[in-house]
Amino acid sequence: MDEFSFIKNYLPNYKPDSELLCGIGDDAAILRPQQGFDWHISTDMLVAGRHFFSDISADDLAYKILAVNVSDMAAMGAIPKYILLSSALPELNKLWLNKFQKSLLQTLEEYSIKLIGGDTVKGDYVFNITIIGQTPSGQALKRNGAQVGDDIWVSGKIGLAAAGLYFEEQCRKKSCGLKYILDNKVSLPESICNFSQDTISICLDKLLRPTPRVKLGVSLLNIAHSALDISDGLLQDLSHILESSNVSAIIDINKIPSLYDLSLSDKYQQWILSGGDDYELIFTAAPDNEEHIKSISQIANIEVAKIGKIIDRDGNFLYKVFDNKNGHEIKQIYTGFNHFL
Amino acid sequence: MDEFSFIKNYLPNYKPDSELLCGIGDDAAILRPQQGFDWHISTDMLVAGRHFFSDISADDLAYKILAVNVSDMAAMGAIPKYILLSSALPELNKLWLNKFQKSLLQTLEEYSIKLIGGDTVKGDYVFNITIIGQTPSGQALKRNGAQVGDDIWVSGKIGLAAAGLYFEEQCRKKSCGLKYILDNKVSLPESICNFSQDTISICLDKLLRPTPRVKLGVSLLNIAHSALDISDGLLQDLSHILESSNVSAIIDINKIPSLYDLSLSDKYQQWILSGGDDYELIFTAAPDNEEHIKSISQIANIEVAKIGKIIDRDGNFLYKVFDNKNGHEIKQIYTGFNHFL
Repeated sequence: MDEFSFIKNYLPNYKPDSELLCGIGDDAAILRPQQGFDWHISTDMLVAGRHFFSDISADDLAYKILAVNVSDMAAMGAIPKYILLSSALPELNKLWLNKFQKSLLQTLEEYSIKLIGGDTVKGDYVFNITIIGQTPSGQALKRNGAQVGDDIWVSGKIGLAAAGLYFEEQCRKKSCGLKYILDNKVSLPESICNFSQDTISICLDKLLRPTPRVKLGVSLLNIAHSALDISDGLLQDLSHILESSNVSAIIDINKIPSLYDLSLSDKYQQWILSGGDDYELIFTAAPDNEEHIKSISQIANIEVAKIGKIIDRDGNFLYKVFDNKNGHEIKQIYTGFNHFL
Repeated sequence: MDEFSFIKNYLPNYKPDSELLCGIGDDAAILRPQQGFDWHISTDMLVAGRHFFSDISADDLAYKILAVNVSDMAAMGAIPKYILLSSALPELNKLWLNKFQKSLLQTLEEYSIKLIGGDTVKGDYVFNITIIGQTPSGQALKRNGAQVGDDIWVSGKIGLAAAGLYFEEQCRKKSCGLKYILDNKVSLPESICNFSQDTISICLDKLLRPTPRVKLGVSLLNIAHSALDISDGLLQDLSHILESSNVSAIIDINKIPSLYDLSLSDKYQQWILSGGDDYELIFTAAPDNEEHIKSISQIANIEVAKIGKIIDRDGNFLYKVFDNKNGHEIKQIYTGFNHFL
């Protein structure tokens, strides 16, 4: 199979409509933007061995590279509409491509996203997705809108993907991945065998199949003052909000929702404060929106938790994390994911 | 230097305007599209060792990855407006980044393009650019518009980049690149020493610094019936026009503009018929537009040449190439660049 039969056989061919005039098949896709909407565009590159294990299954991979990009749209309250996908692949292996394509198209359909362009080249596995979404003009959730007095909220449970990654790494020391160990009922490595099988499965699932919070993001338009998705770690992503809004924050570590089982580990604080890859939303909103946010949470069917407060940038700190059970400040510094450290 | 100081120090920070509401610095850039325009979006991935030599200079690299994307816009008659750049880099080396950035920003400015997003990850050199351009609504040049009776035109000179690549490869057999050999006045490899130094320099320049034909493309709106840029080889790119327009073509090989010096090589036909990377435009237009096209060529300051005719898809062939000096058909099959062959 060559590049052109790949394009013909594996990529969708949409009927043109009033907005998508031309999809895959020319030098560029052609779009006619609707009036009254702003467009959001972002791009993410994922490299084998850095962002995913090289032996990840093709369907998990297709799901995840799409999900992390959809999450960027969710974080701004945007509805994802289109993607362009570039792939460097060592070969055009039909079995692998079939799995990859099936999972990709299924996920695209789930979020009503159209694949309108891309590039396929030979090389070690690298993927790059550019995603385009839209919000009603002027309503986007941005990171620089946090206001003094705002509550700080997070969706879902935090630190699970980081724990999942830790479990996975421990299993790889046995020369096979966690999924293999769970599927084949091989005994877990000693370092993680005191976690329940359920906890381990949930965390692995969160690592491989994070759910981008599109519905929640869209519902928070005109409600939240600022929002981001937690991709690099809660404190690091919160810092981006604080820095660009020129405010500070107080966080109560006991309020950060996670799994009880994980809280028994000495790695717990690290997982919830600096673990990346959860793709939950962190957002701030005025206190009088609390009831509204709780009802949005019910409609979007996703838990939300109030974990702290935005305060004035009076002191010389960006944030402080307290353990309100004993009143102590958590002094240890947790940094999040950084590609070049 | 980490990822975030890289973003802060190396990437442009544009003042928001009525169309670009927010550039780099949030989860996604925010654009408010102008009414009356269609948007063109395409993406290209470039991998070290496949699309460029790993030891290419940072400034040539930055220029080229941008130029090939701008060329996709030129081919549709679109004005390039914005790009997103993802880079996998083995390290954040300041010297390298300074050179890369200077060349990138200079080229962006030359074409009035804004860099509005991207991603920087650790890995072997891979670059992915997504480019966004615009045309007045409904006027885009497409590949599927060629009509029976159209003249087939190309801009510039063809086959030079392929010859440049050949020269480069011959020099690498001496364990150093052509640029090194020319700069250091080291004697050329025997296989290419019968080409003049000027010819060699011109071809190398075409390989490293192709000029995307934006001005020509835009001028051809409402004039050309179809257009593409020659990135994978003249016959292969022409085939895309012929297939999607359901027509055939007759080409006179003597009319394809190139360098006289190259025509003395036994590789000449291969270079002009299947050599990629020239980034000239191939387009078709009604014969009564000939004078108009010639004056456009003068204004855009780029030569154009009529190399053939679009005919009915009567026979069972897509195109035939003749040597009209002797009336013979060129029977040898030249295919262009294909990533997975």
